Amino acid sequence: MNANPKFLAEQAEVDSAAVAPLPNSRKIYVTGSRPDLRVPMREISLHGENAPVTVYDCSGAYTDPDAKIDIRSGLGTPRAAWIAERNDTELLDGPSSDYGRQRLADAELDALRFKLHRKPRRALAGRNVTQMHYARQGIITPEMEYVAIRENLRRKEYLASLRAQGEKGARMADLLGRQHRGESFGASIPDEITPEFVRDEIARGRAIIPANINHPELEPMIIGRNFLVKVNANIGNSAVTSSIGEEVEKMTWAIRWGGDTVMDLSTGKHIHETREWIVRNSPVPIGTVPIYQALEKVNGKAEDLTWEIFRDTLIEQAEQGVDYFTIHAGVLLRYVPLTANRMTGIVSRGGSIMAKWCLAHHQENFLYTHFEDICQIMKAYDVSFSLGDGLRPGSVWDANDAAQLGELKTLGELTQIAWKHDVQVMIEGPGHVPMQLIKENMDLQLEQCSEAPFYTLGPLTTDIAPGYDHITSGIGAAQIGWYGTAMLCYVTPKEHLGLPNKADVKEGIITYKIAAHAADLAKGHPGAQIRDNALSLARFEFRWEDQFNLGLDPDRAREYHDETLPKDSAKVAHFCSMCGPHFCSMKITQEVREYAAKGMQEKSIEFVKNGAQIYREQQP
Amino acid sequence: MNANPKFLAEQAEVDSAAVAPLPNSRKIYVTGSRPDLRVPMREISLHGENAPVTVYDCSGAYTDPDAKIDIRSGLGTPRAAWIAERNDTELLDGPSSDYGRQRLADAELDALRFKLHRKPRRALAGRNVTQMHYARQGIITPEMEYVAIRENLRRKEYLASLRAQGEKGARMADLLGRQHRGESFGASIPDEITPEFVRDEIARGRAIIPANINHPELEPMIIGRNFLVKVNANIGNSAVTSSIGEEVEKMTWAIRWGGDTVMDLSTGKHIHETREWIVRNSPVPIGTVPIYQALEKVNGKAEDLTWEIFRDTLIEQAEQGVDYFTIHAGVLLRYVPLTANRMTGIVSRGGSIMAKWCLAHHQENFLYTHFEDICQIMKAYDVSFSLGDGLRPGSVWDANDAAQLGELKTLGELTQIAWKHDVQVMIEGPGHVPMQLIKENMDLQLEQCSEAPFYTLGPLTTDIAPGYDHITSGIGAAQIGWYGTAMLCYVTPKEHLGLPNKADVKEGIITYKIAAHAADLAKGHPGAQIRDNALSLARFEFRWEDQFNLGLDPDRAREYHDETLPKDSAKVAHFCSMCGPHFCSMKITQEVREYAAKGMQEKSIEFVKNGAQIYREQQP
Repeated sequence: MNANPKFLAEQAEVDSAAVAPLPNSRKIYVTGSRPDLRVPMREISLHGENAPVTVYDCSGAYTDPDAKIDIRSGLGTPRAAWIAERNDTELLDGPSSDYGRQRLADAELDALRFKLHRKPRRALAGRNVTQMHYARQGIITPEMEYVAIRENLRRKEYLASLRAQGEKGARMADLLGRQHRGESFGASIPDEITPEFVRDEIARGRAIIPANINHPELEPMIIGRNFLVKVNANIGNSAVTSSIGEEVEKMTWAIRWGGDTVMDLSTGKHIHETREWIVRNSPVPIGTVPIYQALEKVNGKAEDLTWEIFRDTLIEQAEQGVDYFTIHAGVLLRYVPLTANRMTGIVSRGGSIMAKWCLAHHQENFLYTHFEDICQIMKAYDVSFSLGDGLRPGSVWDANDAAQLGELKTLGELTQIAWKHDVQVMIEGPGHVPMQLIKENMDLQLEQCSEAPFYTLGPLTTDIAPGYDHITSGIGAAQIGWYGTAMLCYVTPKEHLGLPNKADVKEGIITYKIAAHAADLAKGHPGAQIRDNALSLARFEFRWEDQFNLGLDPDRAREYHDETLPKDSAKVAHFCSMCGPHFCSMKITQEVREYAAKGMQEKSIEFVKNGAQIYREQQP
Repeated sequence: MNANPKFLAEQAEVDSAAVAPLPNSRKIYVTGSRPDLRVPMREISLHGENAPVTVYDCSGAYTDPDAKIDIRSGLGTPRAAWIAERNDTELLDGPSSDYGRQRLADAELDALRFKLHRKPRRALAGRNVTQMHYARQGIITPEMEYVAIRENLRRKEYLASLRAQGEKGARMADLLGRQHRGESFGASIPDEITPEFVRDEIARGRAIIPANINHPELEPMIIGRNFLVKVNANIGNSAVTSSIGEEVEKMTWAIRWGGDTVMDLSTGKHIHETREWIVRNSPVPIGTVPIYQALEKVNGKAEDLTWEIFRDTLIEQAEQGVDYFTIHAGVLLRYVPLTANRMTGIVSRGGSIMAKWCLAHHQENFLYTHFEDICQIMKAYDVSFSLGDGLRPGSVWDANDAAQLGELKTLGELTQIAWKHDVQVMIEGPGHVPMQLIKENMDLQLEQCSEAPFYTLGPLTTDIAPGYDHITSGIGAAQIGWYGTAMLCYVTPKEHLGLPNKADVKEGIITYKIAAHAADLAKGHPGAQIRDNALSLARFEFRWEDQFNLGLDPDRAREYHDETLPKDSAKVAHFCSMCGPHFCSMKITQEVREYAAKGMQEKSIEFVKNGAQIYREQQP
C-alpha cells in the first residue's frame, strides 16, 4: 500500500462522501465558559411551525459546511490550548519510541506518511496529566465542562424556549417533554449534568473521558453509566484486505452515523502509518490493542513477545495520540487451563496471544507483572485503560464460566491498581451470553470492578445466525446497556465471516445506536424521549419528511418510502402504501379525534372517568 | 389483476424460488401412531464424522424434492382423513355465505379464481369441532400428537443415537446437550412434550392449534408459552400495490425462512380470490382480519358496517379455511375518548375502523355485542380467535396507558366467553413499548387473560429508527418472548414506510427467528441450545460449510464469507479475512489446547482447582 492514484482517489472519496450535513440538519455550537469551548450539536429543522430538535452529534467537522476538510492536513485542534495552558507537559523533539523513530527515518514510507509537523507531548517528570488526576484534585477541566454541555443537549433551554412561545408552544413542550419513569438498576442520572457532577463521577472512577494529550483534535466525550450510553465502531485492515484510505473513510463514515469512539484494530502492514492518518482526522477517541502491533514486530510469534517490545509499542502509540488501550492483563496463567474444556476455547485475539505466551514460557502474563509500569506510561499521556476480556465467551455455552469470571475478578484488582495511579479505566465484557445470564454478568462487573464503566461487545444472545450477528447482539446490547453498560462495542453483519465494508459499518452503527437509545429510554435518561416523541408526532401528522429526518437514517427511510410512493405529492399524503388511503388508521383516528372533540364532549368526560378508574384498577 | 402472462410468470417464479431444500438439508418425516401422521423436519448434514442436526421445519412440501408442486392445484391434504373420520362435520353443496356464492357466480373472475373442486365443510348442527372441545372431552386428536412430535424434534432419540456410537459419540452428545438453566417466569416446559401434555394445555386454554376444518392442507403447529416461541409473517396487497402471484410467493418465501403462521392482510382488490390461492397453497395456519374485507364491501365507509355484512364475511372466510381471525371486540365506546390525548391516537387499522363506527352510531362495538354469535361461527369450523388490540400504542409514550389496558381487561372477559364455547383464543399485544414497561404488559396479560397465549407485534422499543424497525422491535420481541409471549408477529424494515417486498419479508422473518430462539434459550426450552452448540463447534473447528448451513440463513452467511475469501480453499482455511492467518484466535487456541493437554497436565489439575474455587466464590 502506498501513495498511488488509488490511495489518492480514496481520499477524494472521503471528502465527497463524508463532508455533507444530514438532511435538514445544521451544525450548531454551544459555547461554554470560554470562547474556545464550543460544543457541537446537530439541529434538525422540521416543517411548519414545529421547533427544530437538537440531537447528539459525533460526526465532527465533516458535517459542518463552514469547515475546510482536507484529510492530508488533518482536523483543527480544539484542545491544543487547554492542554498547553495546564503547564504540566513538555514538547519532545520527536518520537521517543525506538519504533516511532525508525518509521520516521524510513524514506520508503515518505509517500504514505501523514505529514505531521507537530511534536509529541508528554507529562513533565513526576506530573500526572490524566482527567482522573485533575478530577481528584478538584479541578474541572475544559474537557469536563465540554461533556457536561454535550450530554445536556440544551434540553432545558429547548423546552423553556417552546413554553415562551405561548399556548401552542407550551402544549408542544408538554407533549415533547413526556417521558416514562425509568428503571435504572442503581444508576443515578441527574436531571441536568453539571461540570461538577462530571468531575465527581470521574474522580470516583465511575466515568472516563478518553483524551490523550497528543490528540488535540478530539471533541471530548464521556463514558459512564450515569451518562448517555455510547457506541464504539471497530475498523482496521487485516493482512488479507483493505488500505489506509479505506480505513480513514470507514472512520469518517462511522462517526457520521453515530460512532462515539473508534477502535483501530489493524493487523496488516503499515499499522503505524494507518493509525497516524486515522488519529489526525478523528474528532472521536481512538482505541487500539497494542499487542496486535507488538506481535507484528515479532513476526507473529507470540512466544517471542517481550515486555520491552510491548513497552516501546505503548509509547509509540501514546505519542501518536491513541486515547485508550485494550490491555489483556487479566489473562493469568492459571486461568488458561480453564478454557480447555470450553465449547469455543479462547476467541479473543489478544487473549489467545497472551495465553500462548504464558504457556510457552510457563510464566505469568507480562502485562500483569508489569501492570504498574504500564500505569506509569498511561498517566504520562492520559491514555485510558480498556482492560481486555481475553477470556470472554465465544459461544452461549461458555458464558459466565470459570475462565471468564476468574479474569473479571482479576480485572477488578487491576482497576484498583490503575486508580492508585489516577489512571482512567473501563472494563471490557462479552461476547456471547444468553439473555437470562446477562444481568448476572453486569451485576458481577459492577461489584467486582467497583463500578468502573463496562464496555461490552454485544453480547450475542444466540449463536445460530451468522450474517445477522448485529441483530443477535443488538438484542443483548440493549439489555446490558439498560442494566448498566456504559459503552457498547458494535458488531456488524460480517462478524464471524469477514471484514466489514462501509455498508456493514453503517448497519452495525445504526443497530447499536438503536440499542443504546432503547437503553437510555429504559433507564429514564432525562429528555431521551424527546426525539421519539417528535418523530411520533411527525408520523401521526403525516409530516413524512420530518419523520425521515428525525430518524437515525434519513436516507434509508426516504428510500424505502419512495420505493412504492416516489412522487413528491406522497410526501404530504395522508397515507402510505402499507394500507392505502381508505385504511390508514392514523387518518381515521384524526377523524375520531375531531368527532370526539365535537360530538362527545360531555360524554367524553364521563367516559374518561370510567376509563381512568379502570386504569387505576389495572396498574399493578 | 388477472391470469395474464405476468401472473403466470409469477407462478413459475414461485416454483423455481421456493421448491428447493436449503443447503445440505433434507426433509425427513417422523411417523406417529398412524401411518398418515407424518411430521416433517429438516435434517442438516455436516462434514466429517459429525452427526446431522435436526431442526424445526415450517417450509412444507416446497422444500421436499419428492413432492410435486403446482400452485394451481394446491398442496396435498394430510388432515383430510382426520377431519372426515371424526364424523362431526358435513360437506356443504357450496359456499353458504352470500358473498362466497356471488364471487363463484361471477364469470369475470374465472380467469383468476383458484380451481377448487372440494366442497366446504361445516360442523353438524349442534356439534363443536374445535381442538379445545376435543381436548376438554379428553380426546387426543392426530393434530395434538402431531405437534407433540414436532416440538420434540427427536432430541432424545438424537442424543441417544450419538451415545450409542461409542466414546466419541458420547462426548459429542455431552457437548451438544449442554444447556444453561433457564429463567422461565412461571412457564413450565416439560423435558419431553407428550400428546397428553398438549391436550391438557389446550383444554385449559394455555395453548392453541389453529386448524380450520376447511384447511386440510395444514401441517399442525401449536402456540403456547410452554412450547417453542413461534413467528408470524404478515403479507397482503394493498390498494396501492402488489398482485395475487406476489402474495402467494411471499407466503412460500416466508415459510421457507421460518414463518410459523402467515396473516393475509390484503386490503386491495380481489381479497377473496387472493385468499383462496394462499390458503390452498399454505401448510401453515392462515390468519386474517375480516373487518378489512367487510369494509371493502361497504366501500370503505366504516359507519356503513353492519353485523350482517360482517357475519357473512366470517362465514365466507371460515369456509375458505382461514385458521384464525383477528377480531377487535375490545374496542369499547367508552375507551375511544381515552385515545384523544395520546401521542399517536389509534394506530391499529381494525381498531380505528371500529372506533369510527362506535362514534358514528354512538353505540357499543357490534363485535362486542355479537361476540357470542361470533363464537357460534368459530366453533362450527374451528377458527381460533386472535383478539385484536385495536387500541395498542403507536409510540413509546402511549405504552401501557388507560386505553390499552382498558381494552386488555375487556379481552380477558371475552376470553372467558369464548372458552365457555370451547373456542380457542389468543390475545394480540403491542406495538411500541420501552424496555422497562414490557414485563408489566406481559404480566398483566397473563393475569387478566388467564394465561391465554399472547401474540405480540414486536414491541418496538424506540420510535427513532424508521427503516430499521425490524431491529427496534426484534429487541422487544426477544424480551417479551422470554417473559412469556407465545407468538411474535414480525415487523419488517418497511414498517411505517411502505409495503414489504420479498427481501423485507425474509429480513423480518430471520430477525424474528433470532428473537424467538433467543427467548427459547433464555426460558431454558429443552434442547434449544443444541443448534447453537453444533454451530459453535463447527465455527471453532473451521468447518465453514457447516457453520453456514447450521445458521438461519446459509445463503447470506456464505455470500458474506465469500466477499473477501471466495476461493474454495478458504472454506477449509483455519482463519478468515477478519483477522488473517497470524491473528486467528481460534487457531491459536487450538495450539493452546494441545499444549495444555501435553505440557501442563499435572499443573492443569491444580490450576483447575484454584480456578474452580474462584468460580464458586464468584457465583452470586
